[in-house]
Amino acid sequence: MPVPAKVEAGTGQWVVQQGLTISVSGPDDPRVRSAAQRFVDHLSLQTGIPLRYLTAQPDKATIAISCDRPGEKVQKLGEDESYKLDVTATGAKLSAPTALGVIHGLQTLLQLVAPSSQGFAAPAVHIEDTPRFPWRGLLLDSCRHWMPIEVVKRTLDGMEAVKMNVLHFHLSENQGFRVESKKFPKLQEMGSGGHYYTQDQIKELIAYARDRGIRVIPEFDMPGHTTAWFVGYPELASAPGPYEIETKWGVFDPAMDPTKESTYKFLDKFIKEMTGLFPDEFFHLGGDEVNGKQWDANSEIQSFMKSHNMKTNEELQTYFTQRVVKIILKYKKTPVGWDEVLTPDVPKEVVVHSWRGPESEAKAVQQGNRALLSNGYYLDLAESAEEHYLNDPLGGDAAKLSPEQQKMILGGEACMWSEMVSAENVDSRIWPRAAAIAERLWSPAEVRDVDSMYARMEVESQRLETLGLTHHSALHAMKERLAPNHFEALRTFGSTVEPVKKYSRSGTHKYTTDAPLNRLPDAVPPESIEARKFSRLVDRIVAGNTSDDDIALARDTMIDWKLNHDRLSPAFQSSLLAEDAAVSQNLSTAATIGLQALDMLGSHASVPTGWANQQTAQLELMKKGQSELLLMVVAPIQKLVQAVGK
Amino acid sequence: MPVPAKVEAGTGQWVVQQGLTISVSGPDDPRVRSAAQRFVDHLSLQTGIPLRYLTAQPDKATIAISCDRPGEKVQKLGEDESYKLDVTATGAKLSAPTALGVIHGLQTLLQLVAPSSQGFAAPAVHIEDTPRFPWRGLLLDSCRHWMPIEVVKRTLDGMEAVKMNVLHFHLSENQGFRVESKKFPKLQEMGSGGHYYTQDQIKELIAYARDRGIRVIPEFDMPGHTTAWFVGYPELASAPGPYEIETKWGVFDPAMDPTKESTYKFLDKFIKEMTGLFPDEFFHLGGDEVNGKQWDANSEIQSFMKSHNMKTNEELQTYFTQRVVKIILKYKKTPVGWDEVLTPDVPKEVVVHSWRGPESEAKAVQQGNRALLSNGYYLDLAESAEEHYLNDPLGGDAAKLSPEQQKMILGGEACMWSEMVSAENVDSRIWPRAAAIAERLWSPAEVRDVDSMYARMEVESQRLETLGLTHHSALHAMKERLAPNHFEALRTFGSTVEPVKKYSRSGTHKYTTDAPLNRLPDAVPPESIEARKFSRLVDRIVAGNTSDDDIALARDTMIDWKLNHDRLSPAFQSSLLAEDAAVSQNLSTAATIGLQALDMLGSHASVPTGWANQQTAQLELMKKGQSELLLMVVAPIQKLVQAVGK
Repeated sequence: MPVPAKVEAGTGQWVVQQGLTISVSGPDDPRVRSAAQRFVDHLSLQTGIPLRYLTAQPDKATIAISCDRPGEKVQKLGEDESYKLDVTATGAKLSAPTALGVIHGLQTLLQLVAPSSQGFAAPAVHIEDTPRFPWRGLLLDSCRHWMPIEVVKRTLDGMEAVKMNVLHFHLSENQGFRVESKKFPKLQEMGSGGHYYTQDQIKELIAYARDRGIRVIPEFDMPGHTTAWFVGYPELASAPGPYEIETKWGVFDPAMDPTKESTYKFLDKFIKEMTGLFPDEFFHLGGDEVNGKQWDANSEIQSFMKSHNMKTNEELQTYFTQRVVKIILKYKKTPVGWDEVLTPDVPKEVVVHSWRGPESEAKAVQQGNRALLSNGYYLDLAESAEEHYLNDPLGGDAAKLSPEQQKMILGGEACMWSEMVSAENVDSRIWPRAAAIAERLWSPAEVRDVDSMYARMEVESQRLETLGLTHHSALHAMKERLAPNHFEALRTFGSTVEPVKKYSRSGTHKYTTDAPLNRLPDAVPPESIEARKFSRLVDRIVAGNTSDDDIALARDTMIDWKLNHDRLSPAFQSSLLAEDAAVSQNLSTAATIGLQALDMLGSHASVPTGWANQQTAQLELMKKGQSELLLMVVAPIQKLVQAVGK
Repeated sequence: MPVPAKVEAGTGQWVVQQGLTISVSGPDDPRVRSAAQRFVDHLSLQTGIPLRYLTAQPDKATIAISCDRPGEKVQKLGEDESYKLDVTATGAKLSAPTALGVIHGLQTLLQLVAPSSQGFAAPAVHIEDTPRFPWRGLLLDSCRHWMPIEVVKRTLDGMEAVKMNVLHFHLSENQGFRVESKKFPKLQEMGSGGHYYTQDQIKELIAYARDRGIRVIPEFDMPGHTTAWFVGYPELASAPGPYEIETKWGVFDPAMDPTKESTYKFLDKFIKEMTGLFPDEFFHLGGDEVNGKQWDANSEIQSFMKSHNMKTNEELQTYFTQRVVKIILKYKKTPVGWDEVLTPDVPKEVVVHSWRGPESEAKAVQQGNRALLSNGYYLDLAESAEEHYLNDPLGGDAAKLSPEQQKMILGGEACMWSEMVSAENVDSRIWPRAAAIAERLWSPAEVRDVDSMYARMEVESQRLETLGLTHHSALHAMKERLAPNHFEALRTFGSTVEPVKKYSRSGTHKYTTDAPLNRLPDAVPPESIEARKFSRLVDRIVAGNTSDDDIALARDTMIDWKLNHDRLSPAFQSSLLAEDAAVSQNLSTAATIGLQALDMLGSHASVPTGWANQQTAQLELMKKGQSELLLMVVAPIQKLVQAVGK
């Protein structure tokens, strides 16, 4: 995962054995050797076989790696990432134009290894692979919740595993300014609460990412989302200070003053410093969600607008954007901005990053700008992998573009906004769902089988945990913390629920930057794989396309749920879980109804009049979000009940 | 855990809340501030509440810490480790003579925190606590399997959590020499296969340990267990080389030549270097398991023995030990040796470390030597926490010593020998069972309730995982690796088995230093808590001291086991699991018999003649170790069957 562009199955398999050797031929690109070393370490983790990095001549090596030419000094958009991989009974040959293909091909080889009748083995296969889109990104928001450097590193490990190649690092926000500036040290000193990356750490992360075939682009969101800048530098704002670091969530009034030359002088120096720190060609200027209230209230800004014949705040923002774009271009970088920057006269160099809807993508291209899709890839909204997976950068309006225009759509980015995640559970919000997005952006467009994706995603999810991601283990520990003496029952209950979707959590408890994220909605994955499997099972039963095993499994599962509330009830004495008791009770009730339905379906006995409608109505109430949880197994139980009614 | 010396329950509880403050008063010991900082971090991990280290005046602080005097520059044996802790509704007061008591008291406070109806809270309590024994150690063998520095660090974290205070670092062996010597660099260069701690890393670990109230004592085992020394320095051996690093397990012939003055010259320089590196007062010289074969075969050694009137190899080893002891004393250290060093004329300074049996402890004391117990605390033998827990340093012969003599028994050490553990699963061999040993060595002798110990150990086990130990998560990942598509069924099966005990694993597969430890016996804990709980359940049922819930739980559990083999059987196609199929089949068969017995017990129906005896005999066969596994639930099922027979 992602599925390669071309796969031909061979016969036989290569069995992983101690003493395996590796050859590396081609130009001296340290990333190749480093990837090979990592391959050995990961293979050891994936098999439990102690392996060392042993070299051999290409004709004798178990894994023969060759690479044609050195890569670009700074990894470039569109740089060749292709590779060819041949697995035979004796080992594997991997060839690629650059180190990037080697990095990707080794991950493919690792994914092929599985337990077999001869030990851990990879099936014989011939693969020719290359990505569909050159920009396959993940946005990490280290501002709203601080993400320590270890979190960023393991996120990069996960990205490498699924062939993502851009870390979009969201580094400034109302709630925090997260990178050291030597020119303007009050940015981090007063705007970060002590949580920021030093320039040395940024360099370390960039090197770490480069080693894994990943570009790092910084985002400094402006002119809005800038409260944390103003704590140290209130003179940048459109209203007098003093300012404090924002602790709440939402869209706020503070915005830079686009009318003062001093703003651009500051930004020129700042962008000069940051374009020096971040070597990537692209530089993200943000540009989203300016509510304009500070501008409306500032008489000097109002007279500036009049004198410049600007009628709307959008025009004022366009003026600001054009000034900032010029600065970015002056420092030889290509600007990227959220889709608010897409106005008729936005410079053609700007890459438009679509977050509000897919339309702006096509519109940008038609205007001559390149574009990126993030709408539909927001990991923070707790939506299903399926929804993300079927969301295509060349779908919607973009499908109607000419092939030449479609090439201007560079790809997309999964977004991990961090209002409702902490460093503790962020892995569980990114993984494994980001792998589905990675496949959408890498694999051919026609790879769209959802069941196949889920089956492969489950295996990849385990592999990611083996490589050091904590999406499973952290949630396990969080549930143990909630119910030290009733963990198994909480696990059962937790497997049937999901957190409420989109932005609906923020309306319930009072969430701020400092609020604990330690309750059940934080400790369950955004998507319940168990509920999905149960739903599939019910689909088969209802369709009559079923077996005795299916029926037995459905029955056992629902018996377990029915009994679970009594098992779990002592844990609801804890104030952290108390609010979830009603949902747990609903699970038992729903399971009881489901068991009745299953019995009726099996016995073909007469069903009391109105029974199905009555139960359906009762179940309908249980589908509503409650205590920030959705009980995901109600809908399939409703299907069982409705099948009885037919 | 360990249970404090004196506990008085109060009324009410202290609720953990954001903004909690800490005061530290007393002398400037950096360990106090560092422990307080760690306390805040751990409390945050244990509750999910974001906390920062905020200070306040002692009368206003939530947690007021005071400490009377600075600790010793090098932590000393017997240094005061006591503390007093008062928890009230508003917070806690912790006072201690030295930083050591502060470190311990903060761990006690962390252990008191649990979910409550008001959030995470600690009950009001007054505690006065001090350890029973001054030496509460854990031996870590980094030689037979290499333990990276991260493993050592998290082991130290776990030791701090349960108030252990000595890391006994086993650093040289036939299979590897693990510390950098600058005087004799061929020791690590030729004797380690590249896996050794640099002197800087050793210093880092010693500082890390000191910060957690833990002394570090090195062991350089001699004159046997020394093959790895001889790879670089064959002239030390009693037979000509060349030597290679040993890869097999057992007792081997190579031993130092005790008759050459050059041996002692080498050891003088070496011990001088190492006593400089390790600041602790004690220095472990090993001294165990010399088979004497090289000495017997060496004519020069034989004539040396004749000329010195030595009749046995033991006498020769005593001569060697006395020479080495003199060197150690010259460098102002106190020698420790395994119980083989206990000969009638061993110097009184030597601390005798009992591993073969508890008798040598009492014998040592009677001879005027101090002693330590490790017999009965070998974590590598996969025995139950109960067995370790009930093993007392003042039990057996030691119980008959006078109170003055008993004071010469310093305590004990849990031993993690590493033939059959790797860095991947070593946590699961140490934890949580070492916590039971820690309690034996800290708490009053009369604290011996096994059920209470298990209940507390389970909670502490979860806390240890939260603090970064991987005893649970690593085994989870290993089972996923074995059966990516049948994890739940493997988990169920795995929860009913234990690895075979003592040294019986080594006789089956060919185990060497490099053999993969990636099969089921490696991926299950040494002790099955599930089997223990089931056994307790059956005890209640058989005794008639039971409830309907108990009967239902026993039935559900056995139904699950009965069905499990069919669920798991596809996974046995993997060669890594194939050998376990018969044991899994036995689980299903045993559960089927158990269900029949439960039915018969409930129905009071007549039982076919001979049924119980027949089933008992069939079950008896299943109790034998098979594929290095023991099916632990057979014995309680036998009890059910026998109850039917009565």
